[in-house]
Amino acid sequence: MLRTHTCGELRINHLGQKVTLSGWVRAIRDKGHLLWIDLRDRYGITQLLIEEGKAPSELLKTARTLGREYVIQVTGTVIERASKNDKIPTGDIEIAVEALRVLNPAEVPPFLIEDETDGGEDLRMKYRYLDLRRDIMRRRLELRHRAARATREYLDAQQFIEVETPVLIKSTPEGARDFVVPSRLHPGQFYALPQSPQTFKQILMVAGFDRYYQIVKCFRDEDLRADRQPEFTQIDCEMSFVEQEDILQTFEGLVKHIFKSVKGIELGDFPRISYDEAMRLYGSDKPDIRFGMTFVELTPLAQGKGFEVFDKSELVVGICATGCAGYTRKQLDELTDFVRRPQIGAKGLVYVKCQEDGTFKSSVDKFFSQEDLKQWAEAMGAQAGDLLLILAGEANKTRKQLCELRLEMGNRLGLRPEGVYKPLWVVDFPLLEWDEQTQRYYAMHHPFTSPKPEDILLLDSAPGKVRANAYDMVINGVEVGGGSIRIHDQKLQKKMFQILGFSDEEAEAQFGFLMNAFRYGAPPHGGIAFGFDRLCALMGGSESIRDFIAFPKNTSGRDVMIESPSPIAPEQLEELGLCLKNNN
Amino acid sequence: MLRTHTCGELRINHLGQKVTLSGWVRAIRDKGHLLWIDLRDRYGITQLLIEEGKAPSELLKTARTLGREYVIQVTGTVIERASKNDKIPTGDIEIAVEALRVLNPAEVPPFLIEDETDGGEDLRMKYRYLDLRRDIMRRRLELRHRAARATREYLDAQQFIEVETPVLIKSTPEGARDFVVPSRLHPGQFYALPQSPQTFKQILMVAGFDRYYQIVKCFRDEDLRADRQPEFTQIDCEMSFVEQEDILQTFEGLVKHIFKSVKGIELGDFPRISYDEAMRLYGSDKPDIRFGMTFVELTPLAQGKGFEVFDKSELVVGICATGCAGYTRKQLDELTDFVRRPQIGAKGLVYVKCQEDGTFKSSVDKFFSQEDLKQWAEAMGAQAGDLLLILAGEANKTRKQLCELRLEMGNRLGLRPEGVYKPLWVVDFPLLEWDEQTQRYYAMHHPFTSPKPEDILLLDSAPGKVRANAYDMVINGVEVGGGSIRIHDQKLQKKMFQILGFSDEEAEAQFGFLMNAFRYGAPPHGGIAFGFDRLCALMGGSESIRDFIAFPKNTSGRDVMIESPSPIAPEQLEELGLCLKNNN
Repeated sequence: MLRTHTCGELRINHLGQKVTLSGWVRAIRDKGHLLWIDLRDRYGITQLLIEEGKAPSELLKTARTLGREYVIQVTGTVIERASKNDKIPTGDIEIAVEALRVLNPAEVPPFLIEDETDGGEDLRMKYRYLDLRRDIMRRRLELRHRAARATREYLDAQQFIEVETPVLIKSTPEGARDFVVPSRLHPGQFYALPQSPQTFKQILMVAGFDRYYQIVKCFRDEDLRADRQPEFTQIDCEMSFVEQEDILQTFEGLVKHIFKSVKGIELGDFPRISYDEAMRLYGSDKPDIRFGMTFVELTPLAQGKGFEVFDKSELVVGICATGCAGYTRKQLDELTDFVRRPQIGAKGLVYVKCQEDGTFKSSVDKFFSQEDLKQWAEAMGAQAGDLLLILAGEANKTRKQLCELRLEMGNRLGLRPEGVYKPLWVVDFPLLEWDEQTQRYYAMHHPFTSPKPEDILLLDSAPGKVRANAYDMVINGVEVGGGSIRIHDQKLQKKMFQILGFSDEEAEAQFGFLMNAFRYGAPPHGGIAFGFDRLCALMGGSESIRDFIAFPKNTSGRDVMIESPSPIAPEQLEELGLCLKNNN
Repeated sequence: MLRTHTCGELRINHLGQKVTLSGWVRAIRDKGHLLWIDLRDRYGITQLLIEEGKAPSELLKTARTLGREYVIQVTGTVIERASKNDKIPTGDIEIAVEALRVLNPAEVPPFLIEDETDGGEDLRMKYRYLDLRRDIMRRRLELRHRAARATREYLDAQQFIEVETPVLIKSTPEGARDFVVPSRLHPGQFYALPQSPQTFKQILMVAGFDRYYQIVKCFRDEDLRADRQPEFTQIDCEMSFVEQEDILQTFEGLVKHIFKSVKGIELGDFPRISYDEAMRLYGSDKPDIRFGMTFVELTPLAQGKGFEVFDKSELVVGICATGCAGYTRKQLDELTDFVRRPQIGAKGLVYVKCQEDGTFKSSVDKFFSQEDLKQWAEAMGAQAGDLLLILAGEANKTRKQLCELRLEMGNRLGLRPEGVYKPLWVVDFPLLEWDEQTQRYYAMHHPFTSPKPEDILLLDSAPGKVRANAYDMVINGVEVGGGSIRIHDQKLQKKMFQILGFSDEEAEAQFGFLMNAFRYGAPPHGGIAFGFDRLCALMGGSESIRDFIAFPKNTSGRDVMIESPSPIAPEQLEELGLCLKNNN
């Protein structure tokens, strides 16, 4: 090794030892007869000292040619520091340098290699190797490594087997868009990259693997939104001979173990809430339950008093913001502007201040008496000093709008603190969603999700009412995982494809192998998949999954470091039997 | 759970317990008033007993409707078996069944779900879910899982960090053919799937990650040979501030740990041999050293005696097959036919029998005296009873031919036993290979491999003589891993690209980001990659990596289970800005 120790390991008990270190020059302080260098590697920072008179004279000269991020190797003796630095583990010692070799010089980097950097996102993406050299970025990828390790630890102990499923699979039109890979040996034909290993993990259950997992790359060719990546990583799991309860317990255990290992946090037992209740109380199927402020419906109370907006609404619903009765006109206007933003789309906001003297002051005093407002306050459990915020309109839309307002109030009131984690299970999802545009049902989860046995009879009469054996794990308002008990009966699977508008031929062409597999003894089975990037970002306290991916793509799907995608050679196209459309 | 126990865990100490098992019907024996079922799951086999008179009468009736591979759930009491079976861990007990539920019926499978199956490879690939249900296949994938776990165990303990590198990268014309992925957001441009994460792991070293690994899928669009797969898995590793010796020791340790964990085998220290010596002694850079029979060169001894074949040859070289002097005419003809096979291509084979009476009998007695032959025998360390087998011709070709003959003799003499593992390192590879056809040098390893410092001066004068800091790990004649110390100096890297015939523009377009990275403080670094599929096959005692991949492609790159690759919808092509050539 080009070192005897790393830059993070020398302590006072190494005093007097002759050591060799290698690393990057983080900083140089030159006091004339004394010159200090902070030497950095992955493991820490060690201070080097070159003293005029004591060190060979050439050495000081060489040291003065060094710049930031030069890679050097030094040999010297561990000595006690005159002024100690208790902020770093090596702060008691320094190295009296006796020899110094430049392993590689460095140009001045385009931004500061520090946690607080002056580099913008574009620049840092282009020079990702410098961005990743920052401590904060390395710690994020270390967290990711530890999270993966904790995942495998737990699942291995539970007799899960990690099985690699193929990356070159088959394109299916259902769901999101596939990335495709032209085949050279079979011109005109294509592989597809998996959006998830869903069918393969089910096949593994048919094969009797009993408990499968995989930490696996998945791919979606979607129009990219802020926090989406064309390639992302899942913790993908499946179990046989289980019911929903078994899955919930097993994977609640997994996430508890990951948080314990990676963050040292004990998560308590996860509450469970039905999809319907989540929508009713939070207007969302991924509620942030770090705080309450649950919805209270006021429709009957609020209607029939001549306020047309309410009278015409399907739903009048509000939240109670504790201690906010003192909000100023400006603050209330801000909230009104907030709910009116196009991406939220409410028409307006009704407020009621529950004043300290027991009276009420509202934006709808014209229509409602003090007694009316008192009834609302009671219904909402409001106390003097609280502020009621009320929206009205079409039920589903209004709930979504109020959900946004609730989260905004949570932010304003500091009720969503970083480092506090509140997980829950959302269960009893609807099996199907009706799409007005295409006038057909879509699977809310995916076409392999089983309906609840007691709802199977509704499949013909009222498909929209059928609930699924499907569940999501939500932490702090982020959906970190989701899954379902699968259909294992080929007739039921066939029926599902029919309901989803597949012709028999389409179903056969796309999923024939799975339905075929079901003919040879498929066990009852179910599973779950976690968004690993998102789980890491959540644990790391970052909004952006990009910070937890070593080499992410930008929002237009480009890797700006390697400049990909890029044109390929005409011969490559020729071999693949492809040509580009003229307009390219 | 739909079971209280698995089919592998009940023992005599469970007697009297009421249990529920779920699994597959492996076999049924119906003796009229007694009916036994072998119930199978991943964990084992448990015998079920249904006794007329004791079990509910409906139960026997239901049991008689069952067929092989039905999925059932039974409840009953653990009882002691009348006739025990010491071949299976559950052989002391059986279950007196009290309730039976068919969870899923099964059609008769197209082949036997047993270690010795009657299904041909094509059929087993199409019904891979049934093939994988066989114990032997499941054990192979379990071995793979354990090997991956042992790998991570060792590397984690050595402070390596697993970092995921991207799957959607950039196409480079150097090396094997890339699979490409058309971009929809950037029509006419393509991603490529990685042949290895080579450049990314080097970038991670520049980023200061110090020790990286990844168990990762790689892709090569090659014409498939028997034991190649378009997607395969590597254990990919890289370290900073190391010299070749550090890498050899670290990864010798890794492979020892894997063999110890997975096979319970202690591998001794790995011998090392230079590329030149390997070629000279074994005619191969991946020698099987489970047996000796090393090459002895006879050129000066054998020339000048009037035997034109030898006189005109660059090299006369032989092996000594111990105790084979008694080979019959027929056996010797077989060996001659063997070396004459077109894929080997020797013109003929010279033999010398060292007879028990001290005389010699050879196929070239016309040209060589007993004294001549005695000299050969002495040179080769042959004893009475041995057989010398000698080839002659152009040096490199002849060595390759004799290599094949040596391996064939090893097989015939039982010198290559399964379960015996003889690893070694082959070191000091040449940096470059000259290609006659294209009249240029190619990198023997890859363009990032560093020349040995003492050979750098030869880069201009005699590039073909430059040795590389490159190494392969070989076990039983199989190359399981290979790597090198990399170039970390941008000027040297530039020179390498020039020697390899890249224009500055080409080098910049393809690897500009790496050379750019080298400008900002790249540490000395090196690494290695292991073929994980092959390593598993080697440990599992199978010739074929397909047996250790859950869902392999066939030799024409097709997945016959899911029928991929396949045509895609015209709209998909349209969105990608692609069209198919007319001839498709």
